[in-house]
Amino acid sequence: MDISHWRNRIDVLDRKILKLLNDRARCVLALVPLKKKTGIPIYEPDREAEVFRNISENNGGPLSAEAVKRIYERLIDEMRSIQRGPKQ
Amino acid sequence: MDISHWRNRIDVLDRKILKLLNDRARCVLALVPLKKKTGIPIYEPDREAEVFRNISENNGGPLSAEAVKRIYERLIDEMRSIQRGPKQ
Repeated sequence: MDISHWRNRIDVLDRKILKLLNDRARCVLALVPLKKKTGIPIYEPDREAEVFRNISENNGGPLSAEAVKRIYERLIDEMRSIQRGPKQ
Repeated sequence: MDISHWRNRIDVLDRKILKLLNDRARCVLALVPLKKKTGIPIYEPDREAEVFRNISENNGGPLSAEAVKRIYERLIDEMRSIQRGPKQ
């Protein structure tokens, strides 16, 4: 296996990750009107704790729990931004 | 569709994303001995540009190109850390 073999695999994985990130963003956007209707705020610490618990309990590595948490902090931050909509 | 429906979908997606992130990390680790053998450094700006090009060209939204780039900056940073190995 040479370098280009692994890089090709990484490129394929990145396109899959990107697709799932956008799928997740669509779910997050679908939540906006439901949250508005029920008066739930965009930022919900209990739900975020649940998201972090889900990923830490299911992390088989080699990424450490801390590494995964840092990636997810960024990811959740972006998801919160799209729920808030474009800045005025 | 209620809130719990979308949250369940998000939890399923998160487990899939997590699996792919770890698959990607395994590929990145497989590159370490190959890079050492050929004298290629861990940080390679040209390859990183290629990774960013791959995701920006394949981004169908709703996440913006900027949002995806910010998530990937964190992700790549973590991948670089595991290639470097644990700090002494």
